[in-house]
Amino acid sequence: MANNTITAPLGFLAGGVKCGIKKSGKPDLGMIICPTGARAAGVFTTNKITSAAVQISKKHVKNQTVYAVVVNSGNANACTGRRGLKDAVKMCSQTARLLQIANRKSQIENVLVASTGIIGERMPMKNVIAGIRKAAGGLLNSKSAGMNFTKAIMTTDTKPKMTCRRIEISGKRVTIAGTVKGAGMIGPNMATTLCFITTDVAITKPMLAKALKNAIGDSLNKLTVDGHQSTNDTAIVLASGLAGNRPIADKCPRYKKFAKALVELCDDLAKQMALDAEGATRMFKVVVKGAATQADAAKAARAVANYDLVKCAINGGDPNWGRIICAVGSSGVKLNLRKMSCKLDDLAVFKNGSPTNFDRKKASKIVSQKSHTITVDLGVGKYSDFCYGCDLGKGYVTINAEYHT
Amino acid sequence: MANNTITAPLGFLAGGVKCGIKKSGKPDLGMIICPTGARAAGVFTTNKITSAAVQISKKHVKNQTVYAVVVNSGNANACTGRRGLKDAVKMCSQTARLLQIANRKSQIENVLVASTGIIGERMPMKNVIAGIRKAAGGLLNSKSAGMNFTKAIMTTDTKPKMTCRRIEISGKRVTIAGTVKGAGMIGPNMATTLCFITTDVAITKPMLAKALKNAIGDSLNKLTVDGHQSTNDTAIVLASGLAGNRPIADKCPRYKKFAKALVELCDDLAKQMALDAEGATRMFKVVVKGAATQADAAKAARAVANYDLVKCAINGGDPNWGRIICAVGSSGVKLNLRKMSCKLDDLAVFKNGSPTNFDRKKASKIVSQKSHTITVDLGVGKYSDFCYGCDLGKGYVTINAEYHT
Repeated sequence: MANNTITAPLGFLAGGVKCGIKKSGKPDLGMIICPTGARAAGVFTTNKITSAAVQISKKHVKNQTVYAVVVNSGNANACTGRRGLKDAVKMCSQTARLLQIANRKSQIENVLVASTGIIGERMPMKNVIAGIRKAAGGLLNSKSAGMNFTKAIMTTDTKPKMTCRRIEISGKRVTIAGTVKGAGMIGPNMATTLCFITTDVAITKPMLAKALKNAIGDSLNKLTVDGHQSTNDTAIVLASGLAGNRPIADKCPRYKKFAKALVELCDDLAKQMALDAEGATRMFKVVVKGAATQADAAKAARAVANYDLVKCAINGGDPNWGRIICAVGSSGVKLNLRKMSCKLDDLAVFKNGSPTNFDRKKASKIVSQKSHTITVDLGVGKYSDFCYGCDLGKGYVTINAEYHT
Repeated sequence: MANNTITAPLGFLAGGVKCGIKKSGKPDLGMIICPTGARAAGVFTTNKITSAAVQISKKHVKNQTVYAVVVNSGNANACTGRRGLKDAVKMCSQTARLLQIANRKSQIENVLVASTGIIGERMPMKNVIAGIRKAAGGLLNSKSAGMNFTKAIMTTDTKPKMTCRRIEISGKRVTIAGTVKGAGMIGPNMATTLCFITTDVAITKPMLAKALKNAIGDSLNKLTVDGHQSTNDTAIVLASGLAGNRPIADKCPRYKKFAKALVELCDDLAKQMALDAEGATRMFKVVVKGAATQADAAKAARAVANYDLVKCAINGGDPNWGRIICAVGSSGVKLNLRKMSCKLDDLAVFKNGSPTNFDRKKASKIVSQKSHTITVDLGVGKYSDFCYGCDLGKGYVTINAEYHT
């Protein structure tokens, strides 16, 4: 089997270890390095309260070159005051000191950091430092090393989530690989959760940033599990440039090819996240058409995907479309009830403001699939948008009632 | 035991019957009448999609006198098109025809209607008509008749919810009684769910409307169970005027006394609803202080009360305050993290942007109470507001995954 982990693109090594941040004893510290230096770009949470790691990485990502990313799970290092900021900086400096990449001391500012886990607890820095040492000493460019990184960033995820795309740009093979961790506190307007993408494409920093922002906007930002925006959400892309393609420096066809592959990769990751969301058993896509504005379409689609009663109905395999219409109504978007309609996949359940005589068994079968599409036409305009969601199962409650103490 | 049902104030008769709208065979049609005619006021959902009953009652409540309210549970009569509107009108006309209150034919427009239940299904009008006949034939002013009304409007409620206040206005005893049904799809900006209040106070229609709006704003509108705004929410108050007090016609001390009692009554009903919310085992009050504006305070308080991860933590007796801060941050309100603090009842868990060394056992005990208060200080201004919420338990999922088919 091909290597589809984040070590697949040329120029990356990775690793993941256990260092006791998590009480469960599971892997909790991961590292990715690009010894030759990578162009980097990041998208971060828009929550007004951000973790120490987000605050530090937002600054560091502005540097022209990034050599390493260090990530821990089990502790979010958020709401931890000045001490938390110091701890996040320490994670960078420790990584920089140990790596001494390419025979020169990499600077603290060339290291990015990300954290996920419990909010409001201080980082167990003794464990973290030991973990960084252990990880830095065992970095490899193998498939298993990439997998170890992915495992180290997981929290309530039940499955490691990763994907890879291989394309050709100016006659050279370019590889893009990505991994994400879910699976709760996944909501609006951000680079949902932690997402790390590596690629060997040769590209300028501004174009890389543009491609990332675009890809996240059409994928992870279209996913809602519980409408919750975390303090820690971070998506980072590192480009080693080793593929040897003619460098991408503007909106040329090469850029478009790369950007398209990046969207597909992120869309794939978003779907993996939806299916592995806390307590979820299935996912769905909400498409809203006929909206007066693009913003209205996006708002209505998100409202449906976020609506607990819709999510519970889908969990129960119940084609309770009335709740879909109710969710759209409460979103406050412009609509014309007499021209509104709703479909579950291709089955019309509501047309021009009245229920149809649809086959209930068929409808129930549709919403019981691993994935289905809900289409709502607002009947007032020509704009459309979409949002991914997942069902709300008892597992979500179990996981989140018992996560902390 | 005193009669604390909606038949307690002078001048009201009520009843509740089974007519087969609900498949469960439970009571599903209720009626309140005021044979001498009542002043009425109503507050309705702000969802853009409203039930047929809401559309009709919004018109009818403008009349100077209301003689009856007819309510069904088991079917929301929402998203049912023109046929649904006809059905709602038919419920009023049938009630008017049968009652012939005070020896004169009451007009259709003097009857209010409310519905709750499944959205998107046509009303089984044969059953409804039979139910109206049955209910109209057995109206009484007894305690059991009032209780029967309350039972007939319940859906997933596990307990009948009602309360009563007795005050003195200009030397006369004035009684106010109220009943509500919950217990899911309870969200923002409206007279949450179905709420019926009867009183014998003598008051003008405008002052009654003012008192109702004020009372609902500070009680039922401050409650969120799942952030879901229903298509059917309705709060109606009927005042018979038979208490014989000097009529309330302006913002006099008599008005203030009545308005205060009405707020207390609605607050009591809101708390009963929170504790009987779908799957809930406990409730909490979120107080936000130190906000830059009143709107910010209300927004942040609601964001915390609506936050599934906070609700799940409370369900598990887990003092996971980091999620509270995260919820506040994602609400987008102005805040100063370095001056922010958070208390669980009187226990400070977060102060000036850093965690305190609080006693975890004590904190866990606090959030495991039947009711506790979360206080968040944003550290930027002088405004405060509150919101009621309840925990999110597995029961919510069970109820809503299995409600329909």
